[in-house]
Amino acid sequence: MVRRFITLEGGEGSGKSTQARRLAEHLRTLGLDVVLTREPGGAPLAEAIRGLVLAHDPASPVAECLLFAAARAEHVAVTIAPALARGAFVVCDRFTDSTLAYQSQARGLPWATVKNLNRIATQGLSPDLTVLLDIDPETGLRRATEQTRFEAEGVKFQETVRRGFLKARAAEPKRWLKIDASKGKPEDLAEQVWKRLAKKLPKIQKESTRG
Amino acid sequence: MVRRFITLEGGEGSGKSTQARRLAEHLRTLGLDVVLTREPGGAPLAEAIRGLVLAHDPASPVAECLLFAAARAEHVAVTIAPALARGAFVVCDRFTDSTLAYQSQARGLPWATVKNLNRIATQGLSPDLTVLLDIDPETGLRRATEQTRFEAEGVKFQETVRRGFLKARAAEPKRWLKIDASKGKPEDLAEQVWKRLAKKLPKIQKESTRG
Repeated sequence: MVRRFITLEGGEGSGKSTQARRLAEHLRTLGLDVVLTREPGGAPLAEAIRGLVLAHDPASPVAECLLFAAARAEHVAVTIAPALARGAFVVCDRFTDSTLAYQSQARGLPWATVKNLNRIATQGLSPDLTVLLDIDPETGLRRATEQTRFEAEGVKFQETVRRGFLKARAAEPKRWLKIDASKGKPEDLAEQVWKRLAKKLPKIQKESTRG
Repeated sequence: MVRRFITLEGGEGSGKSTQARRLAEHLRTLGLDVVLTREPGGAPLAEAIRGLVLAHDPASPVAECLLFAAARAEHVAVTIAPALARGAFVVCDRFTDSTLAYQSQARGLPWATVKNLNRIATQGLSPDLTVLLDIDPETGLRRATEQTRFEAEGVKFQETVRRGFLKARAAEPKRWLKIDASKGKPEDLAEQVWKRLAKKLPKIQKESTRG
């Protein structure tokens, strides 16, 4: 099986967006068709929902979770599923595991409810591989350049988010690659991500040595 | 048990909004505390979501359903649950049954999925009484003053929606009052709604004869 749907997960300041971009660039240098996308967002309506959540700060954690699920459903339907169907790689900055970490582990919604919503939103589509850029929250928050609502909640919140990612990984260890994102320059981290990923992507590795 | 959460359901042109307003006014003349509200909407974020759905026309029926669920979760948390908690009546123009009729019966999402989403969004809160303003789609569409996306889909779509309401009613007949909304002036219809409702609301009827 060719594994083509790759997600990147991690807390604030873990460098997910940079690593997602570098990974997509690397795959493109191998001549592969790659769609680089992000959540929440990745489709016009989904980006509008992202803006709505930021502007309104939902009073209900359930509403917040349902909005992210709605954005994901549109993102999957409009962007991810068609890309995978035509044979492209999809590199996505955050996906279903972020909802488990943030909305369940940190916000307190039942894990089973969030898994259930993820399944409804994705229509059962699951990432083939997920890179966890693991970082201790103090280092992450010091590095984070963009102030988000979640960052404002501080170190304790980020510690809970981190536990959420580790819990999701424990449930499906084969899907995950955990990488220590606290040390090294972005380019070194990108190399590490690629080396670890390439072992899980034998077909790509072959392309890589051929190219 | 005092039944205080009343919803009105029906297809386009059935006169739901008018009847919801008249019912709320009637309850107020009895000196009761009444919150008149509507879906999608009824809370600032929920109204913003309503605007988003109208402006964007979701590509994915699942996304549309999740957006309505998100709006409902916020509406319940911000408006409906606090009103019921303080002892007020809540009269709501459309609620969970509209999602069953439109998103499941008409749009084709599985009935169980939509029920599941309704339960998550409402956190288990269910209407005490639901008035179905039943109307044949041709009459309804001729009457409808406001052109919505759903009206544009025409008579066949509205016939399916109507079947959806009747299916929801068949599953819980005690909760529903079905009223023929195709004949009579709005004031006559309002009187009919009130007479039928009053029988189901013994405590209010007592207030009514006393007042």
